[in-house]
Amino acid sequence: MSLIVQKFGGSSVADAARVMNVARIVTDTYKAGNDVVVVVSAQGDTTDDLIAKAQEINANPAKREMDQLLAAGEQISISVLAMAIEKLGFPVISLLGWQAGFNTNSVYGAARIKNIKTNRLQAEIAKHNIVVVAGFQGINRYDDLTTLGRGGSDTSAVAIAASLHADKCQIFTDVEGVYTADPRKIPSARKLEEITYDEMLELATLGAQVLNNRSVEMAKKYSVELEVLSSLNPIPGTIVKEKVKMEKMLIRGVTKDKDVAVVSVIGLDDNPGIAFKIFSKLAQKNINVDVILQSVGRDGTKDLTFSVSQENGPVAVELLKEMSISEGTKISCVTDVAKVSIVGAGMESHPGTASKMFEALYAQNINIQMISTSEIKISVIIAEDEADRAVSAVHNAFLPNA
Amino acid sequence: MSLIVQKFGGSSVADAARVMNVARIVTDTYKAGNDVVVVVSAQGDTTDDLIAKAQEINANPAKREMDQLLAAGEQISISVLAMAIEKLGFPVISLLGWQAGFNTNSVYGAARIKNIKTNRLQAEIAKHNIVVVAGFQGINRYDDLTTLGRGGSDTSAVAIAASLHADKCQIFTDVEGVYTADPRKIPSARKLEEITYDEMLELATLGAQVLNNRSVEMAKKYSVELEVLSSLNPIPGTIVKEKVKMEKMLIRGVTKDKDVAVVSVIGLDDNPGIAFKIFSKLAQKNINVDVILQSVGRDGTKDLTFSVSQENGPVAVELLKEMSISEGTKISCVTDVAKVSIVGAGMESHPGTASKMFEALYAQNINIQMISTSEIKISVIIAEDEADRAVSAVHNAFLPNA
Repeated sequence: MSLIVQKFGGSSVADAARVMNVARIVTDTYKAGNDVVVVVSAQGDTTDDLIAKAQEINANPAKREMDQLLAAGEQISISVLAMAIEKLGFPVISLLGWQAGFNTNSVYGAARIKNIKTNRLQAEIAKHNIVVVAGFQGINRYDDLTTLGRGGSDTSAVAIAASLHADKCQIFTDVEGVYTADPRKIPSARKLEEITYDEMLELATLGAQVLNNRSVEMAKKYSVELEVLSSLNPIPGTIVKEKVKMEKMLIRGVTKDKDVAVVSVIGLDDNPGIAFKIFSKLAQKNINVDVILQSVGRDGTKDLTFSVSQENGPVAVELLKEMSISEGTKISCVTDVAKVSIVGAGMESHPGTASKMFEALYAQNINIQMISTSEIKISVIIAEDEADRAVSAVHNAFLPNA
Repeated sequence: MSLIVQKFGGSSVADAARVMNVARIVTDTYKAGNDVVVVVSAQGDTTDDLIAKAQEINANPAKREMDQLLAAGEQISISVLAMAIEKLGFPVISLLGWQAGFNTNSVYGAARIKNIKTNRLQAEIAKHNIVVVAGFQGINRYDDLTTLGRGGSDTSAVAIAASLHADKCQIFTDVEGVYTADPRKIPSARKLEEITYDEMLELATLGAQVLNNRSVEMAKKYSVELEVLSSLNPIPGTIVKEKVKMEKMLIRGVTKDKDVAVVSVIGLDDNPGIAFKIFSKLAQKNINVDVILQSVGRDGTKDLTFSVSQENGPVAVELLKEMSISEGTKISCVTDVAKVSIVGAGMESHPGTASKMFEALYAQNINIQMISTSEIKISVIIAEDEADRAVSAVHNAFLPNA
């Protein structure tokens, strides 16, 4: 007998028909002889509706009260799902975050799980109940409700799987798994059977928002085997784990991220420490810098270019202007750019990967503005209107039609 | 400095504008130098909407899960009200039933409060916070959520007032107080300044549903001074307490109750114990019998007539038929009747009260079918289509236009 944790997002339980669908998936798993713990998010737009309700009254409410409000969302979804499972004739109990033992710190709206006191969970499993747990929420040391922030239900599920040493943690979404590229755009994109935690992390960072990053980090840390699969078509999805068979694939996927702004500082005095000064200032303001390019200019000056999220572009420009780093520098920011990346643990041992990517782009006459690489990822910044063509070209080069 | 508990029902907090209105009432009370604990129900139709959501999935769900679901209603209203109070610039915190220390038994859907652990409440009051508490809900010994049943928020408010020895418990409703009759029907009806607990209990039982009965019983038991007043027009309402000044009023109010069925058993064998057999059977089935009339018939038989709620009328008839009490009895049930009552502690010492009531009805040619009296109440059963005229006539007799 296995213990399986299953997590369903808000769209999977958006209405009565979908709740019944989830109840059937859960009870099928239970019927097959498994213990099952189910983690659910709030139904459909409930969280957004509750936020709107708050905004109507107070544009900037205390975060503690916001968490108290939002936690009602999963309270509704767990009890309704429990009723659906009961309707199908199976023993079931719903537990709020605090009833399931989720202890968090007190950062309302983005709390971190400190530990899970599993005695109630274990007692209910021992009674052969299907246990339906509210994702996204916990309790702090003052007995006040907290929420883990958006995507927190994935983290709740992985945390339960880790605490109970579950055999598997299944994350049900509206896609059938992790694909080599966005299947709506690249018809030849294929679903991956397996992917490593690190690859999954890179893909998530790069805009393939299948899994919440914190949940993947936690799964890696506690070696929880994840499976991403569809609640509408529950065939085997993509397994996320530490080591995977290589499948003769050099890369695991191609992604596009349009949320990029490129900030340039032209004509900086060529003094030591200037880059440090700039990036420490940005870090202080919590601005994440991605690709960095430094080039020698002329007349003893140099140019510095870096990419940030679009939201942070103008903020970075303001900060740079306030610093008055050196006279005569020109500071600019462009947002009509995109980042195209390939990800794959296999590329570490294949020196030709980068040149193969650049060749594919060159063949399409696509100009590369910036390049960044890590052990398992190569990213290029290009013009935004060429991004879809670039993804297609790179995908064809590495993953030609099977 | 006084401690005041204020309770607002669902219609008082139905939308953002009404929530802000309640926030102003609460903060005005706080500004006047009082400590304030506010008890609220779920907003508007939230509870009904949640019940409908459950019904869509499971027509007969576990009561534990129903309570888990319904408790979300007040969770939303308390946090939203706290945000409104914060918006007005006052220190505030919201507490769920269990956070406020409401320990109940485990009768899901109709739980009884066992005690209130007031440490959290007292700590928040000591910090000069306005405390907004979720009515209607608590927690049992298994750490599971419970609800007190409909009207439970009144009970929550009185229980807090009793536990904290509050100076007053104000119940805000959509009427301005307790009236001598329904002011929409009897233009000369007046608002009472004061009324005793016992009178209030009789009025509630008789269909003037201003206050939940359990809350009045609890207020009487712990000598909590209640005030019934309007959230839309917060002028002084009606005070409910143990002893009131007599105001030279013989009676306190005239009420009408249309939820009455009269069951008759004609031609019972005149054996001792037959009445006991019938009423113990009805009691076993939780059927509350109100007015009872027993008359000697003819030929050694007797007739038994009693009133129950309309819902219980056919049930009682079925039970009586099953009993096959004696051959040749005729069992019937009529529902086109109403009960008109006068209530007043003053009538105890005024022997003419009943005859004055009967005279008023006789003057209107209204036939009295049954009569029942207690120390502070006289009720008559009459034809339903004469009920409004009867209330008016009796009201004029005892409480002529001022």
